Amino acid sequence: MSHRLSGIAAQLYEGIKDTPILSPHGHCDPSWFATDQAFADPAQLLVIPDHYVFRMLYSQGIPLEKLGIGGVAYDPRAVFQIFADNWHLFLGTPSRVWIEFVLYQTLGVDILTPETANTVYDQIAAKLNLPEYRPRALYKRFGIEALATTDSALDDLSHHSTSIDADWGGKIVPTFRPDGVLDPNDPQFSANIEKLAEVSGQDTNSLEGYLTALRQRRMFFKSLGSTATDHAIEVVHTEWIEKADLEPLFQRVKSNPTPDEAARFYGHMLIEMAQMSLDDGLVMQLHAGSRRNTNAAILDRFGRDMGADIPVATEWVRGLDALLNRVGNDPRLTLILFTLDEATYARELAPMVGHWPCLRLGPPWWFHDSAAGIARYFDNVVETAGYYNLAGFNDDTRAFLSIPARHDLWRRGVAAHLALMVNKRYFGIRDAEILADQLTIGLARKTYRMEP
Amino acid sequence: MSHRLSGIAAQLYEGIKDTPILSPHGHCDPSWFATDQAFADPAQLLVIPDHYVFRMLYSQGIPLEKLGIGGVAYDPRAVFQIFADNWHLFLGTPSRVWIEFVLYQTLGVDILTPETANTVYDQIAAKLNLPEYRPRALYKRFGIEALATTDSALDDLSHHSTSIDADWGGKIVPTFRPDGVLDPNDPQFSANIEKLAEVSGQDTNSLEGYLTALRQRRMFFKSLGSTATDHAIEVVHTEWIEKADLEPLFQRVKSNPTPDEAARFYGHMLIEMAQMSLDDGLVMQLHAGSRRNTNAAILDRFGRDMGADIPVATEWVRGLDALLNRVGNDPRLTLILFTLDEATYARELAPMVGHWPCLRLGPPWWFHDSAAGIARYFDNVVETAGYYNLAGFNDDTRAFLSIPARHDLWRRGVAAHLALMVNKRYFGIRDAEILADQLTIGLARKTYRMEP
Amino acid sequence: MSHRLSGIAAQLYEGIKDTPILSPHGHCDPSWFATDQAFADPAQLLVIPDHYVFRMLYSQGIPLEKLGIGGVAYDPRAVFQIFADNWHLFLGTPSRVWIEFVLYQTLGVDILTPETANTVYDQIAAKLNLPEYRPRALYKRFGIEALATTDSALDDLSHHSTSIDADWGGKIVPTFRPDGVLDPNDPQFSANIEKLAEVSGQDTNSLEGYLTALRQRRMFFKSLGSTATDHAIEVVHTEWIEKADLEPLFQRVKSNPTPDEAARFYGHMLIEMAQMSLDDGLVMQLHAGSRRNTNAAILDRFGRDMGADIPVATEWVRGLDALLNRVGNDPRLTLILFTLDEATYARELAPMVGHWPCLRLGPPWWFHDSAAGIARYFDNVVETAGYYNLAGFNDDTRAFLSIPARHDLWRRGVAAHLALMVNKRYFGIRDAEILADQLTIGLARKTYRMEP
Repeated sequence: MSHRLSGIAAQLYEGIKDTPILSPHGHCDPSWFATDQAFADPAQLLVIPDHYVFRMLYSQGIPLEKLGIGGVAYDPRAVFQIFADNWHLFLGTPSRVWIEFVLYQTLGVDILTPETANTVYDQIAAKLNLPEYRPRALYKRFGIEALATTDSALDDLSHHSTSIDADWGGKIVPTFRPDGVLDPNDPQFSANIEKLAEVSGQDTNSLEGYLTALRQRRMFFKSLGSTATDHAIEVVHTEWIEKADLEPLFQRVKSNPTPDEAARFYGHMLIEMAQMSLDDGLVMQLHAGSRRNTNAAILDRFGRDMGADIPVATEWVRGLDALLNRVGNDPRLTLILFTLDEATYARELAPMVGHWPCLRLGPPWWFHDSAAGIARYFDNVVETAGYYNLAGFNDDTRAFLSIPARHDLWRRGVAAHLALMVNKRYFGIRDAEILADQLTIGLARKTYRMEP
Repeated sequence: MSHRLSGIAAQLYEGIKDTPILSPHGHCDPSWFATDQAFADPAQLLVIPDHYVFRMLYSQGIPLEKLGIGGVAYDPRAVFQIFADNWHLFLGTPSRVWIEFVLYQTLGVDILTPETANTVYDQIAAKLNLPEYRPRALYKRFGIEALATTDSALDDLSHHSTSIDADWGGKIVPTFRPDGVLDPNDPQFSANIEKLAEVSGQDTNSLEGYLTALRQRRMFFKSLGSTATDHAIEVVHTEWIEKADLEPLFQRVKSNPTPDEAARFYGHMLIEMAQMSLDDGLVMQLHAGSRRNTNAAILDRFGRDMGADIPVATEWVRGLDALLNRVGNDPRLTLILFTLDEATYARELAPMVGHWPCLRLGPPWWFHDSAAGIARYFDNVVETAGYYNLAGFNDDTRAFLSIPARHDLWRRGVAAHLALMVNKRYFGIRDAEILADQLTIGLARKTYRMEP
Repeated sequence: MSHRLSGIAAQLYEGIKDTPILSPHGHCDPSWFATDQAFADPAQLLVIPDHYVFRMLYSQGIPLEKLGIGGVAYDPRAVFQIFADNWHLFLGTPSRVWIEFVLYQTLGVDILTPETANTVYDQIAAKLNLPEYRPRALYKRFGIEALATTDSALDDLSHHSTSIDADWGGKIVPTFRPDGVLDPNDPQFSANIEKLAEVSGQDTNSLEGYLTALRQRRMFFKSLGSTATDHAIEVVHTEWIEKADLEPLFQRVKSNPTPDEAARFYGHMLIEMAQMSLDDGLVMQLHAGSRRNTNAAILDRFGRDMGADIPVATEWVRGLDALLNRVGNDPRLTLILFTLDEATYARELAPMVGHWPCLRLGPPWWFHDSAAGIARYFDNVVETAGYYNLAGFNDDTRAFLSIPARHDLWRRGVAAHLALMVNKRYFGIRDAEILADQLTIGLARKTYRMEP
């Protein structure tokens, strides 16, 4: 599915289609690999947890409750039928491309239509019960060499430990995601700071204890294989605040900060994170520009991550100024930027990663991880950034089964792009082959410090 | 004219090129169809009322007065000669594509050059006098199934009544455009409020009477076939104001409001309009991001709509927040968004229409209603919005003769886009044929509630 | 080297590839043509002065000192070896395309690889010593009909005088670049105002003397062949300030102005410049949207123009409002706009140049002067602006040897674009040939008032 390739593109794709998969950033559940239990029913597999899927159904007037979302009782077969009845809504979207890959290549079931929904449901359910469709078996079949999850700074990482202890041959590493203890806008911020004290044994009432606790948590993550941190922010803002001002600000933001105080504190803490990276070597990721939970009724009823996160315009140059001018020339730092504002690809990000030694540009993210999104990314980025300032690919998915589909879509996009470049005589086929390999796995390994 | 199509694209185009035309949004003059008088001379037909045409001539130093604009005496033949002498300025623009379609396909005249201007002028003039080039005859020849005009909230819609009474077989419906009575920045705002009292018989001095009058006017428009409202705004802002604050604000904005007061009031009234739509079922259209009348000398001398309206950056997510969180989950509402800021296609609008049940995305608007504009629209929008959250096409023209040309350009663009998607294996030819039909007429009928 | 062209594109390219080169805007050093000395070593030719080159090497962790930058002692052969060792970093960038053109077409040396670096170094060094590789000989071989440099308002233009006196057949004209005496943010602003007094003999302590001095300098530039001015600004702001307020503001900005005062003064002076253009006929250029020197450590150590200038979002409509509404309808003015924010191509700039008689749109600038950048430019601009509101091409380079490479890349881009348009049936091959010639040289000659 996706991209019928011919000529040079087909030739390049041939050379990378079977390369192992590195998944250095994503949202898979580590318990899958720790427990190796079978995946639940087809609705749980393909509809209920996938915000790409249910947002589209919701946009066409289907209540989320009818999809089994929000803790209601539901009949998985009925949910799957609704999905099949509305399968045409996904025409033209990468979700359809990915799910077709899962259905027809990974699971090998019949063509999905409203009429075949029942049969396909049974076929999927039967497969999920087979040993070769358990998480660890699929991990191996997919040819994954390592997979990073994304975990709260407060997480005990027990599943990662179990996964390591089980010695089944897979590599599941955590990623340090401390937003909950850095961002005063998080409703649980103050409670999280207290929980941070518990898990670290530090007195997080003082700024010093708080910073020490963070350093310690990072080392804990690193001890379980983590090579990276991850940070999410709506509006990019960084700002260095001197200690005399920071200590009282830290005390204030714990209870009812003003928006400005919250932004300033978080903006400072991002620089602290970058500085800690100089010491512990964790690669820093910044995902910016998503306005979260824009539908208040949905947030109240169903919680976060329910398809109402919408991108906004992002200003990278001024927003990162303070961070970059503090640590951006230090060769020890790697900071990977992810944007949802494609207008910044050519305008800001490509020139920035083409100058600052610490910066790398992440692959097309979220809505832009698609055939046209990938083409726009290369078109806008490469001429200024070159290839070696890119971070390669990551699938960023919480749908484990879609991983091969997403990497395949990327690889086809890489082949299509490089063939275009060869055709424009930017370089020849031999250089294109080297670049194809870099974009498939080399750059990701190097950028995330996950060399096998 | 435009797009030499081959292969799958040609096949898809074949299937839609003769589909009836639905024109659910535009600016044709309803008197044309009420009176069915012949169009005036060629200069009046092709140059003087077309701001796409005279802005380009003005940009190259030709004074508007020389084109017969601004109430000056003019020789239509001389104006037409100037147009022909500068015909090369339009190379590469959709205006040239549209006008060539009108000249060579609709009117069947000779090739226009500076040398043939006189002959072509005579040929057009002769055609316009024939019965088969009268508005109603052309309407039928064009295969139009319904056409919506855009009309002031204060309009008596007499031409629409006449057109209905005449029973000639065409369907000309009004669209409720209340900017003049909602936007305190309109220089006539206060006078318009008084006129609203006259036409409605309500006391518009009170907020309640004002709102009642608006409700009543909407019902009047609906009684003459209207299915939609339309609203124009430079900067997207919506805000719900509670009654205690709204009443005094309403009184203040009638005389010399501050810019902030005007913006707040208009932002509130857009939500009132959406709420009225819940009751009366009128589809709501929002055209945002055009900065009007940027050339003060031109405005003073020639008035509005003289080619100096220029797009500005638009922020949809934050701007519509209040409206959407008040009525956006209500299944009764349809709100169609039109943008002039293409950077918002993929960043904001596609994710928004892919979540909110009320939202649909309008087709490429104004400067972007062009071959490349249509290609960019599909490229940026479809992967996230799918097809079924789009509003189909509308021509938005005040040049009646250009309607078939504009729909043809769109249909060629649809065919070219879908062929690309088939080639990328997003879907097969059968799905492409269904989508081609939807994009040509199905989605417009459904979104505008204008099923035949 | 860039774009394998076939069919119509190849045919169009054939017709323009040998057209003379006009270079109406760039940053070549006029002393090259005045003294006609040989260029220095290969590192000085290709690496050390080219911020496109060393920013990329720096982004991958190579210290600038190792490249001989910053006044350090260096071995040019070692610098060239570093460059060759990292030649793969430039894959996909126009820098590689341009430099390959220089190496293999202009200089005719061996293929550059890490292994051949030494040999290629020797080959280049040998060529540079030959008479036919001196600046004047290359100027003629390149087929240049005129070349404009960019010069401080305080420059004595001695090299231009010498170049004229030498009567060698070339035409090297200055461009009036007065930022240093207009922009209070320039650290040397106050000193520059004093120097302006010296070179003009005017008392620049008074506003009147200052304005008179500027008028006089413009006439001096014009007397040496200048046809244009050039202005750089980060955030577009223009504002007319009445004399009563302007005189005290002028006094204040000379010592420690607030950012707001500085912006207001500079915004006023841009309008003064436009008004002076009405009188003396100098074409005005505005390069906007580059945030300069974003890396403070690099600025402190190495100075300006060191690869850390990054584009920011630009707002043209509101920013130019005051200037355009003061002089924008005057037929004597030509104002060429250059942007680094491609989102403004279709949204703001094409509609603006398609209305205002004074405006012309400059070619893709800096990071966007590339194959894909040129394609995006035409795709976004032409349908609204047409071709005759474009300013043709200029190379804007400080690397003299790259001039033919850059013009060739543009010409291939022109041919590729026009072939696409012919294929979309926007126009036929005959019109395409005329437009190819216009875009290659006609529009530049006319816009810059540099008819041969």
